[in-house]
Amino acid sequence: MSNSTPQEPQFDPQLLDSIKIVLCQTSHPGNIGAAARAMKTMGLKHLVLVKPKDYPSEEAMVRSSGALDVLENAQVVDTVEEALADCRLIIGTSSRNRALPWPLIEPREMGELIKEHVEARPVAIMFGRESTGLLNEELQLCHYHVNIPANPEYMSLNLASAVQLIAYEIRLASKMIAEIVRKDSQPVDAELGYDAQAESEHDKESEQLASFEEVDGLYNHLESTMNKTEFYNPEQPKLLPARIRRILAKARLNKGEVNILRGFLSSIDKYIKRHVK
Amino acid sequence: MSNSTPQEPQFDPQLLDSIKIVLCQTSHPGNIGAAARAMKTMGLKHLVLVKPKDYPSEEAMVRSSGALDVLENAQVVDTVEEALADCRLIIGTSSRNRALPWPLIEPREMGELIKEHVEARPVAIMFGRESTGLLNEELQLCHYHVNIPANPEYMSLNLASAVQLIAYEIRLASKMIAEIVRKDSQPVDAELGYDAQAESEHDKESEQLASFEEVDGLYNHLESTMNKTEFYNPEQPKLLPARIRRILAKARLNKGEVNILRGFLSSIDKYIKRHVK
Repeated sequence: MSNSTPQEPQFDPQLLDSIKIVLCQTSHPGNIGAAARAMKTMGLKHLVLVKPKDYPSEEAMVRSSGALDVLENAQVVDTVEEALADCRLIIGTSSRNRALPWPLIEPREMGELIKEHVEARPVAIMFGRESTGLLNEELQLCHYHVNIPANPEYMSLNLASAVQLIAYEIRLASKMIAEIVRKDSQPVDAELGYDAQAESEHDKESEQLASFEEVDGLYNHLESTMNKTEFYNPEQPKLLPARIRRILAKARLNKGEVNILRGFLSSIDKYIKRHVK
Repeated sequence: MSNSTPQEPQFDPQLLDSIKIVLCQTSHPGNIGAAARAMKTMGLKHLVLVKPKDYPSEEAMVRSSGALDVLENAQVVDTVEEALADCRLIIGTSSRNRALPWPLIEPREMGELIKEHVEARPVAIMFGRESTGLLNEELQLCHYHVNIPANPEYMSLNLASAVQLIAYEIRLASKMIAEIVRKDSQPVDAELGYDAQAESEHDKESEQLASFEEVDGLYNHLESTMNKTEFYNPEQPKLLPARIRRILAKARLNKGEVNILRGFLSSIDKYIKRHVK
């Protein structure tokens, strides 16, 4: 609390710029406009629309108020996979407890998570349909589910209001504390020789968090190899895809690790090819 | 963060019941309806309308969605003084720095303040006109001004969105700490029949974090299968064991997941046995 006019606090533009708001199959164009407005009030820019029902639309423009630029720059795609392709942290909004428990955070924790994990950007935050939310398949692509606390007797949070709350928490998290100096800003060690430097560049690349596309590729490879080796999970066969996805989500694999695991899968494929007629 | 389904936390009903949302001279009835909806999602009930321009209204009812009860119980008054009469803590929302500095808090501090000062209830939170906000005379009736952080280049927060954010902070502040009990510590539901119980016991067991021994067993199995399929990591062969161990550490596998992965490895072993002479 302050009795005098506080100085305008600074917000980390890189954090705000790293956020993609992904709206899946929105029915009402007015909600898209209102979501764009909600985003802009909190300094978010990147809107991705997956198969919107009725878009572009006059109503979206009207409801966006002064946030037409967010709408105009919105990316419209056909699949969730396209929307998430380059993202390194994927968070899905969910109001229900699903059959398969998933790492669950509150909006405030989400803000902290995004702030602390600079390496895990861009970040996608997915919002589902007005009526039914995100599908299970979509939720299983996420590293975390975020649950907005709400009145259990009336959880009918408007889509744009949900975007508003999430964007607000991101803005709060992006408030800069002067003392935070990032590790990346350290000078490169001048004593490293040429080869060592190249090696360390390689390590750096390999330690980078894998993108959604890379992890999704690993998942598909795994599934195909499992089919080849006739793997069948007797316990809960139907849940298998979701459980595999969850393991991958929890592991937060980096590029090098994805390469190792794909290499292992390839070794199985090749072994089978060589030995089995 | 919790990997298990947390029990619905409890929210202090007395705190939620002590809040009055006061909207001053709202122009658009749709905003009144949307504000009622925003309030209800967070468990707030008491809406007071000071000289609304166009009310009652069909549009307000439509936009209130399922929160008609909040609208129907709304108090409509002619003056701010009537609205505030029995209130012991008065907070005005304000986006601008006024000529006369006033005790200024952020929404989060506001929540704490309301929570801590039980003696200062009921609490009124005032929202101004869509275009011009609260008048100076109105702001000067307040104990505190609350300022919602926003993009300085675009502060155009919708009225209902502002109500949503304030109501959200109040809901968070009303969370009762003592009652937060995780699902794991709950007794098994006595009404569950035999099969369901066995199933849920199985789930519970399977969701339990794997022991070191179990994960180590998985690691050894993985290494042995990798040898069989002649997997060789060309990038950093020496680091391979450590990198595999790290993946397993990051994934925080539960018992069920260890079983799935071992099942997959066994399927490879058996496949090789069956097909390779």
